[in-house]
Amino acid sequence: MLKIDEINKYIDDHIDEHIRRVQEFLRQPSVSAENYGVRECAELLRSYYEKLGCKVADVMETGGPHPVVYAEYDAGAEKTLLIYFMYDTQPFNKEEWTSPPLEARLVDIEPFGKCVVARGAINSKGPLVAFLNALESIRAVGDQLPFNLKFLSQGDEELASRYFADFVWKHKDMLKADALFSPEAYQGQDGKVTMELGYKGIVYFELECNGKAWGRGPTEFGIHSSAKSWVDSPAWRMIQALATMTSKDGNKVLIDGWYDNVKPLTDEDLQLIDKLTETFDEEEIKEEDKVERFLGDLHGKDLLVQYYGSTTLNIDGIWGGYTGPGTLTLLPHKVTAKMDVRLVPNQTSEEIIPKVRKHLDEQGYTDIIIRPLDPYEWSRESVNEPIVQATIQAYRKMGYEPEISPISGGSVPFYLFTSKPLKMPFTCAGLGYGARAHAPNEYFVIEGNEKVAGLAGCEKSYVAIFDELAQLKW
Amino acid sequence: MLKIDEINKYIDDHIDEHIRRVQEFLRQPSVSAENYGVRECAELLRSYYEKLGCKVADVMETGGPHPVVYAEYDAGAEKTLLIYFMYDTQPFNKEEWTSPPLEARLVDIEPFGKCVVARGAINSKGPLVAFLNALESIRAVGDQLPFNLKFLSQGDEELASRYFADFVWKHKDMLKADALFSPEAYQGQDGKVTMELGYKGIVYFELECNGKAWGRGPTEFGIHSSAKSWVDSPAWRMIQALATMTSKDGNKVLIDGWYDNVKPLTDEDLQLIDKLTETFDEEEIKEEDKVERFLGDLHGKDLLVQYYGSTTLNIDGIWGGYTGPGTLTLLPHKVTAKMDVRLVPNQTSEEIIPKVRKHLDEQGYTDIIIRPLDPYEWSRESVNEPIVQATIQAYRKMGYEPEISPISGGSVPFYLFTSKPLKMPFTCAGLGYGARAHAPNEYFVIEGNEKVAGLAGCEKSYVAIFDELAQLKW
Repeated sequence: MLKIDEINKYIDDHIDEHIRRVQEFLRQPSVSAENYGVRECAELLRSYYEKLGCKVADVMETGGPHPVVYAEYDAGAEKTLLIYFMYDTQPFNKEEWTSPPLEARLVDIEPFGKCVVARGAINSKGPLVAFLNALESIRAVGDQLPFNLKFLSQGDEELASRYFADFVWKHKDMLKADALFSPEAYQGQDGKVTMELGYKGIVYFELECNGKAWGRGPTEFGIHSSAKSWVDSPAWRMIQALATMTSKDGNKVLIDGWYDNVKPLTDEDLQLIDKLTETFDEEEIKEEDKVERFLGDLHGKDLLVQYYGSTTLNIDGIWGGYTGPGTLTLLPHKVTAKMDVRLVPNQTSEEIIPKVRKHLDEQGYTDIIIRPLDPYEWSRESVNEPIVQATIQAYRKMGYEPEISPISGGSVPFYLFTSKPLKMPFTCAGLGYGARAHAPNEYFVIEGNEKVAGLAGCEKSYVAIFDELAQLKW
Repeated sequence: MLKIDEINKYIDDHIDEHIRRVQEFLRQPSVSAENYGVRECAELLRSYYEKLGCKVADVMETGGPHPVVYAEYDAGAEKTLLIYFMYDTQPFNKEEWTSPPLEARLVDIEPFGKCVVARGAINSKGPLVAFLNALESIRAVGDQLPFNLKFLSQGDEELASRYFADFVWKHKDMLKADALFSPEAYQGQDGKVTMELGYKGIVYFELECNGKAWGRGPTEFGIHSSAKSWVDSPAWRMIQALATMTSKDGNKVLIDGWYDNVKPLTDEDLQLIDKLTETFDEEEIKEEDKVERFLGDLHGKDLLVQYYGSTTLNIDGIWGGYTGPGTLTLLPHKVTAKMDVRLVPNQTSEEIIPKVRKHLDEQGYTDIIIRPLDPYEWSRESVNEPIVQATIQAYRKMGYEPEISPISGGSVPFYLFTSKPLKMPFTCAGLGYGARAHAPNEYFVIEGNEKVAGLAGCEKSYVAIFDELAQLKW
């Protein structure tokens, strides 16, 4: 049993210092897609592990540009937790931000009071520092941590962890642990606590239609658009090719066999969804994402079934030809689209690209290029897993009844830990709130209100969960 | 009769100075779409007119940002020519150029010897300066110009002359003249001389599909792509909407009534095309535009009929969502396309946008926004026009048999002069060659070879044509 009250008081007494460390970490950019500040951020993170008392704290190379920061804390305990973090962030266009994305300013955002606004604030550098603050607070009052910890922190997550899988396989002995713990800030804006029992997988790829590969249209550069009279258009070809892939409404994928391996939701899934439906607030989602209505005008349970049970085919971006101001007249030589597919059980990443390829070939688009980027598989565990049940118990003691989702729509590389060879149970937990991951003005709540924990409440929740996990008989 | 030999000798003796003036004018940017250097270029052009001896030489405001440069040269002659120029250029991305677009370097380009490489080199600042050099050379040997000249030079041509029409209507009395002359460098790379009896019109517009107007999908910003499970996609909607507009091959427009007003080619057109077919070198076009084959695998006369007789619907550019490096996962809230339509007789610009609107509405895309930009009408005159016949005669005396096209695929605002109220005949003529208008590494031949005139030959051709026109009985 940890000295919870003393630790919580320590957190309250040192909250300004804790906020400053959150800001310090957010001001250090770590944009993996642009290789912007990632290594400097890794060094900063390593210094945090050393300060905590980790005997091992290394910046370790992967096959790619962005290192893993690995650290070990020896508490002399029986059990070991693997702590998974990402320290990289998505890119940003600072023009779109009202508070600069690297300044980590404290901004009043109703109804949460002061929030820190920065790229990575909620996803996920804010919760990362909050967790380290919590651990230091446990140590500061003279308690020992109840577990040995292995910190595994990757800088490649927003690039689909393309070098991370190799790293995990290569170091599987080093990474052995009894369970995986991922500290998050998992409240909704109304204070609801959520838990997720898994993550959808993802396949990300680019499609490119160009005149060179096609043998028609301009092959090397865009030409004067008057030539459209007698020269074919790779842009129109791309439009026509893409249009064959979905129904008119863009929601049903018409690629042959696309849904073959989608497993219907299980009884456990449906029970969880029934429970979720009782408190599901679709207005919150609509407000947060600025969406006026959902696909198929679905509501309530039907909408949740749609969300949790669906695979997708999304256009992340498309570009080609002249995209600047004015009226430049151009017949473009190529158009490119970025696309992603979310995988649900029992789809596999291996099936996607061949299905897209076969579809394009059968439609006559053998020339359209597919550039696959490294995928994630889905992961999923049962609600009856002991570490999951202990987390639920910790939340209840804090006065929260967690809402448990069968699977998250987002994708994280947990499948590397939950399937062979590591095959460990996992829990992602913590109070706190933030929003606009991947979008402008991303934020993490610092002050909080009676429902939503601020930074102090977030840190205290990690302490409470650790205390509960420590009492678990494995 | 001009003192042709003396004038030609003067041109040869002063060619270095003439080259320097071409470079000077090209080094002054005039990118109308970006309002980059346009006004400074107008002032420079005005100084050239003053130097020539124009008593009137004014930078005149239009309703838009880019002025007209207007000048009058009084030769005390019976007849007056309106000289039409554009002095603005397309934008450029200097990254794509091997010789910087504003340095106007002299670069050896086989088989033409030295060429000047710059944005605007051939379209059309190079020929503009060549023409002024020619006029000054006539004066330098003591000859008077055989016509009064009115120089009308617009800086808005690459923005579809959006303020130019108003200017012309407003100043129609000032602009009265017996004919329009537009100095060009109209040789092919093999030295062939071409003439065009008209220009296709153009309608340029943007289409935008966004979640706000649709009432579905993200409405204000792109959101995390995991939301595709339950949120509609404006990007897929745009793809599906565009796909309804053309046949699978992108070449036949499926919009109702699209071809209703397309007049079949006339007997004169077909006779001109028969003549053109004798010397038409499709390999030259393929090499210049880097195109491997033409639409429908057409060749020879069929290909020319396709080119001259066809209206088009072209995608100039398309963009939306994430278009940078890496794998940012986004469900975009909007996609925009830039499109243009080339008009042939007897289409009108007024019919196009309503037809596109009606098509989108009938297909259920009432929310897709059309942003029309100012259009050009087509223009066309007969090969039997006296000024055209005189130009042909001048070419023949220089040893060239011109190839006469019924209409150009490109669009210029000549319709303002050829239709009411000005209604004058026109000729566009001159030796010389250049390429890559609107593309990287645009160039204008300075040195030339036995077939293609360099700068001196270009200037001499203007002198010869003026001499022939001066002998015409109107």
